[in-house]
Amino acid sequence: VTEEEESIQKNGKARDVPMRDESGTDSIKDGRDAFSWLIAPIKPEEFFQNAWERAPLHVKRTNFPDYYREILTSEKIHNIIRDNYILFSKNIDVTSYRNGKRETLNPPGRATPSIVWDFYNRGCSVRMLNPQTFCPELRKLNASLQDFFGCFVGANSYLTPANSQGFAPHYDDIEAFILQLEGKKHWKVYAPRKPGEVLPRFSSPNFTQEELQKPVLEVTLHPGDFLYFPRGFIHQASTEPGHHSLHLTVSCYQKNSWGDLLEKLLPAALAVAQEEDVEFRKGLPLNYLRHAGVSNSEQETAERQAFFAHLQKLLGRLMVHAPVDAAVDQMGKQFMHDALPPVLTTEEEKCSVFSEELLTINKDGRVSGSVALNLNTKVKLLRSFILRLVKEDDSNDNVQVYHCVDNSLEYHGEDPMMFEVSSEFAMAVEQLIHSYPEFISVSDLALDRKEDQLELADLLWKKGLLLTEKPLA
Amino acid sequence: VTEEEESIQKNGKARDVPMRDESGTDSIKDGRDAFSWLIAPIKPEEFFQNAWERAPLHVKRTNFPDYYREILTSEKIHNIIRDNYILFSKNIDVTSYRNGKRETLNPPGRATPSIVWDFYNRGCSVRMLNPQTFCPELRKLNASLQDFFGCFVGANSYLTPANSQGFAPHYDDIEAFILQLEGKKHWKVYAPRKPGEVLPRFSSPNFTQEELQKPVLEVTLHPGDFLYFPRGFIHQASTEPGHHSLHLTVSCYQKNSWGDLLEKLLPAALAVAQEEDVEFRKGLPLNYLRHAGVSNSEQETAERQAFFAHLQKLLGRLMVHAPVDAAVDQMGKQFMHDALPPVLTTEEEKCSVFSEELLTINKDGRVSGSVALNLNTKVKLLRSFILRLVKEDDSNDNVQVYHCVDNSLEYHGEDPMMFEVSSEFAMAVEQLIHSYPEFISVSDLALDRKEDQLELADLLWKKGLLLTEKPLA
Amino acid sequence: VTEEEESIQKNGKARDVPMRDESGTDSIKDGRDAFSWLIAPIKPEEFFQNAWERAPLHVKRTNFPDYYREILTSEKIHNIIRDNYILFSKNIDVTSYRNGKRETLNPPGRATPSIVWDFYNRGCSVRMLNPQTFCPELRKLNASLQDFFGCFVGANSYLTPANSQGFAPHYDDIEAFILQLEGKKHWKVYAPRKPGEVLPRFSSPNFTQEELQKPVLEVTLHPGDFLYFPRGFIHQASTEPGHHSLHLTVSCYQKNSWGDLLEKLLPAALAVAQEEDVEFRKGLPLNYLRHAGVSNSEQETAERQAFFAHLQKLLGRLMVHAPVDAAVDQMGKQFMHDALPPVLTTEEEKCSVFSEELLTINKDGRVSGSVALNLNTKVKLLRSFILRLVKEDDSNDNVQVYHCVDNSLEYHGEDPMMFEVSSEFAMAVEQLIHSYPEFISVSDLALDRKEDQLELADLLWKKGLLLTEKPLA
Amino acid sequence: VTEEEESIQKNGKARDVPMRDESGTDSIKDGRDAFSWLIAPIKPEEFFQNAWERAPLHVKRTNFPDYYREILTSEKIHNIIRDNYILFSKNIDVTSYRNGKRETLNPPGRATPSIVWDFYNRGCSVRMLNPQTFCPELRKLNASLQDFFGCFVGANSYLTPANSQGFAPHYDDIEAFILQLEGKKHWKVYAPRKPGEVLPRFSSPNFTQEELQKPVLEVTLHPGDFLYFPRGFIHQASTEPGHHSLHLTVSCYQKNSWGDLLEKLLPAALAVAQEEDVEFRKGLPLNYLRHAGVSNSEQETAERQAFFAHLQKLLGRLMVHAPVDAAVDQMGKQFMHDALPPVLTTEEEKCSVFSEELLTINKDGRVSGSVALNLNTKVKLLRSFILRLVKEDDSNDNVQVYHCVDNSLEYHGEDPMMFEVSSEFAMAVEQLIHSYPEFISVSDLALDRKEDQLELADLLWKKGLLLTEKPLA
Repeated sequence: VTEEEESIQKNGKARDVPMRDESGTDSIKDGRDAFSWLIAPIKPEEFFQNAWERAPLHVKRTNFPDYYREILTSEKIHNIIRDNYILFSKNIDVTSYRNGKRETLNPPGRATPSIVWDFYNRGCSVRMLNPQTFCPELRKLNASLQDFFGCFVGANSYLTPANSQGFAPHYDDIEAFILQLEGKKHWKVYAPRKPGEVLPRFSSPNFTQEELQKPVLEVTLHPGDFLYFPRGFIHQASTEPGHHSLHLTVSCYQKNSWGDLLEKLLPAALAVAQEEDVEFRKGLPLNYLRHAGVSNSEQETAERQAFFAHLQKLLGRLMVHAPVDAAVDQMGKQFMHDALPPVLTTEEEKCSVFSEELLTINKDGRVSGSVALNLNTKVKLLRSFILRLVKEDDSNDNVQVYHCVDNSLEYHGEDPMMFEVSSEFAMAVEQLIHSYPEFISVSDLALDRKEDQLELADLLWKKGLLLTEKPLA
Repeated sequence: VTEEEESIQKNGKARDVPMRDESGTDSIKDGRDAFSWLIAPIKPEEFFQNAWERAPLHVKRTNFPDYYREILTSEKIHNIIRDNYILFSKNIDVTSYRNGKRETLNPPGRATPSIVWDFYNRGCSVRMLNPQTFCPELRKLNASLQDFFGCFVGANSYLTPANSQGFAPHYDDIEAFILQLEGKKHWKVYAPRKPGEVLPRFSSPNFTQEELQKPVLEVTLHPGDFLYFPRGFIHQASTEPGHHSLHLTVSCYQKNSWGDLLEKLLPAALAVAQEEDVEFRKGLPLNYLRHAGVSNSEQETAERQAFFAHLQKLLGRLMVHAPVDAAVDQMGKQFMHDALPPVLTTEEEKCSVFSEELLTINKDGRVSGSVALNLNTKVKLLRSFILRLVKEDDSNDNVQVYHCVDNSLEYHGEDPMMFEVSSEFAMAVEQLIHSYPEFISVSDLALDRKEDQLELADLLWKKGLLLTEKPLA
Repeated sequence: VTEEEESIQKNGKARDVPMRDESGTDSIKDGRDAFSWLIAPIKPEEFFQNAWERAPLHVKRTNFPDYYREILTSEKIHNIIRDNYILFSKNIDVTSYRNGKRETLNPPGRATPSIVWDFYNRGCSVRMLNPQTFCPELRKLNASLQDFFGCFVGANSYLTPANSQGFAPHYDDIEAFILQLEGKKHWKVYAPRKPGEVLPRFSSPNFTQEELQKPVLEVTLHPGDFLYFPRGFIHQASTEPGHHSLHLTVSCYQKNSWGDLLEKLLPAALAVAQEEDVEFRKGLPLNYLRHAGVSNSEQETAERQAFFAHLQKLLGRLMVHAPVDAAVDQMGKQFMHDALPPVLTTEEEKCSVFSEELLTINKDGRVSGSVALNLNTKVKLLRSFILRLVKEDDSNDNVQVYHCVDNSLEYHGEDPMMFEVSSEFAMAVEQLIHSYPEFISVSDLALDRKEDQLELADLLWKKGLLLTEKPLA
Repeated sequence: VTEEEESIQKNGKARDVPMRDESGTDSIKDGRDAFSWLIAPIKPEEFFQNAWERAPLHVKRTNFPDYYREILTSEKIHNIIRDNYILFSKNIDVTSYRNGKRETLNPPGRATPSIVWDFYNRGCSVRMLNPQTFCPELRKLNASLQDFFGCFVGANSYLTPANSQGFAPHYDDIEAFILQLEGKKHWKVYAPRKPGEVLPRFSSPNFTQEELQKPVLEVTLHPGDFLYFPRGFIHQASTEPGHHSLHLTVSCYQKNSWGDLLEKLLPAALAVAQEEDVEFRKGLPLNYLRHAGVSNSEQETAERQAFFAHLQKLLGRLMVHAPVDAAVDQMGKQFMHDALPPVLTTEEEKCSVFSEELLTINKDGRVSGSVALNLNTKVKLLRSFILRLVKEDDSNDNVQVYHCVDNSLEYHGEDPMMFEVSSEFAMAVEQLIHSYPEFISVSDLALDRKEDQLELADLLWKKGLLLTEKPLA
């Protein structure tokens, strides 16, 4: 733990808690505000400079035990189980860690409160997977954070009975934000054990206590407290006799590294290079199999040196051909599939296609009140990250619009949502992306014909991707 | 149309409408009551003698336009679309039939009210598939009917704008009960065109008007009216100018014929016969390929006759080996997978594991109030068709319990739900099946040891398969 | 062992050995002659009355040690391994049975003589699978026998070093004909242990000596001897010190029982019944799930009795609809895929499309000598079982012709060979089937137009399915 | 056509034809000799400097019409079809190109001479695919060439009747060596039409005559002539009235380019980089999705520049991690699967496990004569490219030996052939690779224990991978 980090930990007592801003006017700003609130009084700049991907951070909030309370309570978990179709293994796990042995005790089938609390009363931890599916307040938080982080933000909740531990020491493949909701829990956090485990790509197996070194942070979380640690930091936590614990782990940055982008970029770059650059299509030298290969690796022949030098040269030329923007769009497309659908404020609902007031079914079965945008209507995208333009097929002029507005509340519950527009329309969508969060008139859309302006606006609005400045009369 | 049928149609005016009984004490009786209510004033015996699988039946209810109103309205459909994640093609279709051309116009993605009503206002019919998933009142009706029919009961709703027709003439593979909810619709029903289309196994393609003969029934349905026709009866319906229509088609008996049972029975019977009866394992006669086969079908040789006679003899022995009960259980198992989960009354909820009052999460995270059954508790199965015992594996002593209590609201939304019990426990489950709808004490379960009686009762109760006579304190 | 069987075994000494007739004029007669030669001096009628599927049979041929010698020798096996691409596990197995433990010792990859004989010299048995693929003499025998048995005739050879046993006691799922070729081997044959193992459908696992009762036959085979036992008879065999053994097991009637035919017939019969007979399409009775099923099997209600009676009635009607000839053709089609291709005599080759003399490539690249059939050419099918007419698709008029002339030497080495003809042509093919083994003039083919007669004859001849009476000039 | 190329074409008259050297002492030298003979009097250096992947080359051999005759003739093709199981589409194609329309006329099933010559006499071209499978002389040539080129060498033969053309103009994805065997054929060869078609990765579709420019080479090939053109060069060829043509196209370098190696190398390099270098595992910057992507490609923000610069830096670090030798071994492993098995000279056979003289089956079934290598036996690999060492699994110490000695004569007729050795043994195999073509004593193998030296030698010898200096007695 560096000096700065210690100072953060000292200052971590939250005196001035900001209100969560829900103005809804700018999803980027909203996301940043949500994150500021999450880690207050630490400032985001401070956080990213000192903690992010580097060190654990504890924020104490002794005077604000209810800081996160509105998000989730054990009672709400009870209601979720009772009122929804919750399945063991898919939505909920009951687990235990006793005498160094970690067990998942899920029976098959539906989880009813009666079965779940039976396990709980017998000392099992109850982990709910992605409770945001069933919990609107958490969904709101995560949907907002994902606009800040630019990637899927998930969550698990952990309800642990007194005097127990539900999981073996291990590290995860995500950035972890721990929000203590009820009771208290004692945490031990350990630095990565070796360079190869710093910011790892995959979660670890369970460790024995013998495999651990000294923790870099040991702390008891109380209601309102916050704890962060980067992926790769081993952790374990337990409750004391007489005190249960409920916390939420909000997570992000799973498979969101430079390497993940390169996994999309490199094959594409090579494909382009092979198409555009004859050097990549030339035949290999006649004798390369005799000079390279593991069994030839100690032969420092001239041919071998020339061979390696040429490969190096070709690798150097790869970046010239690398379709970086297209690869980034593939990441963006993936994000649109992963993302939670946006959670609309009441105000936003009124200005969207989701407004209850738009349509009336008359007694005689006719539907009236359907209102249309006009050229003077002012519109903007519903969120900064509500859609992604992707150019996937060079054989025609169309552009694919991937979006998340219709995503199911369940992670990957539906196939990616996509529709196509012409390249002219795509330019106008681009305009909406760049003008965000400002409203622009339909008549200012970068399309020559008024009909096209109206058609595009109508299309995006019907899909639920647009907000109007004022509710449509 | 026979004389009796005509008389039914004449008497079909519903004067004395019974209330739907929802006592919840006997699901078989409840199911029968629900069906009686559906077709009143016709009596079920009358219906099954004269109409079922034989002829269409119209019940006029001029004085009871709101007879079915509580089940579904166009406003409710609007709310379902607005409040749920409804997808085109999966949950909803927009269709048209104009100038003899039938079209499905579903766009990809989510169906929002705005898009749906746009189609509707442009003359398209809106078909909602299995609205019972989203509509508790309809779910209650269908779940009750399925206990009467012993098979899955589904439904589609059809909202048709004025002066239009949404579908081409065709026949279906299900028994159809039409419930007119709003507006009016003019129906033409045609008898099967040839013997092979009587009670067909598969729905027909769309017919042209030229392929139809004279209708056997032509009638305009008004709110509250009921219409039945068997599978294989061609039908088409249209609205008049100025009048929209909303009706519900409740359906059953899809793939529920003797032939469907035989499809399960015959391979099993042959497998048993081959195992138990050496006659089935004996080699075919040396020369049969020269005497039988289509190109030998006109050779009336002695060998050919002997060959056919022997086959006939073997077929006759098949029934001896036919595991009829096991095949019926396969049908029962399939029904458990198809079935809607039961809809509980408030009273029933209180006497089941789903009771809200059973458990309290204390402030300190402890869960209290979990109550257990005792030997004096009186219990019965939640429904007559809540579970099915199936013996699937002769290599051990276990019996499989397939059940529908955890089925998703979506048809086949989850894998079949099953758990295993020992053959001793299975005997006690059988006792519960046969004693239904009477309650029996846990101590009267046919198990030697009290612990086993409690264990089985607790298991079934926790799974949600049991009702107690009184709410557990 | 019955008295008759004993008498057969006594008479089993082959005094008058017939020559194998290879006239090639009638494949049915040839097949019967081949089988007569195989079991001489026993007559086929005797064999089928007393031994076939009933009891083992031993024929001693003390004075004819070379009786089977031309078929296979250990030297030929060596040459096969050396000259062909023989793979362990696919074509050859090396096995051992020592101290009650049976092992297959196949290394991966190609079997070279050096590796094989290494195993052999270390006491392993060498089993060659389907040596007929590489051994024309055996192929000739098996191809001839399959025209007699009407099913695939396979073979394995077993080379066993002195003083060893290669296999544990077991029974097989085929009729076994053992031909002792070299050395001697001591056999123990045991009757099926229980009714369920008489003529079994599947081979047994390996038995321990403790699982066996007293053998029904114990005999030492010497060169030229023959041994038969039906499927289900357990057997084991071992060599004495100082004497190796080579024998061939010719096999047939695998999956060729009445039950196998019924497996094809029953689903087809039910499909037809469902299509033709409305009784099979009628709905099941409303309450059947409550009266039938294993948990209701002891309730002798009237409904249950009626239910079973109705099922019985339907089963009785099945035979009416059973498409027996079509099911037999499915067996015939399967046989065409399984079958060895015919082995032609030199004379036959000259009268077939395979004649070397038919075509000459001139120096200048032109091909001359291609001769055509004319109306006076007399033709017949190459073999009785060279093709099978099958009517597979009722949506058109075509008939499928499955044939085996192009089958690969490897079992199932190629997909089934099939071509289609019109129903008119099919009638003429039928005529060829029924006139076999007589020749008929092309002009006598049952087709109205001479062009069609020539076209069909040319088609069949080019496919290699016809023999002409005389070589084409 | 450059001046040098013209000069090559002028000098292309083969005056001094070298004999093909078949000493069999060094497969690399043999391969080079085979190629020298193929293109004589052009020298390989000349060829690779002026023609290879650059320009067509014609060698005229007016005085040596039989130069290639021993390899293949139309009579041999006739015999191959008659004596082997040749299937249309798999082994042979009949094609035509008439009035600008290209057709493949393959019937289903087996190709008999009668059917093939019927097509031929009606003007169709007959293409035999990979005739080396059935033609030992061609197999010998190709197997030798593959040791020179270090990749699979294939072939097709083309028999074209007089006055016809069998194929439309097109280019291929292989280096083509045309060997004129019989008759004469007129060729037109065109340069690649655009940079993207130089050395293309995939063959072209058929072109119309209108899509072609002026040929760079137009020439009539006579028996003994040779023609080369690189992949990407469009070509078409036709026969004159009265003259058929038979030529062979020997091909190589399909998917053997730098790009193909990079397709194996890049994913491996990235995987290693992600494992070894934390820079690749660090998270992407928070806002990258807003700065990169096609719709942001015109925004020259500082973040965008930094983002691209960082990607460039990471790409630069890739080569550090690139497991080049392992990727080359993957190419080598692929080659082992593609490769023709070696064709042994009589002398070589005697010094290999394939020697006929090694083993004798005695009359009494014993096998004698199996001889073993001893420590003084001198051995070398059968060919330079007979095996490839590959290290595939880092979780253990074993090394995989992929080899081609057991490959089937059919391309990819068998799965890759592989066995494993310990890393100690692998070192000794490496020694054999590097000492090739010299013999070394078994006792000089780099293994500590004599038993291991003998075990490895015996293993490789039994697999057929070794030659001894002298036949084993």
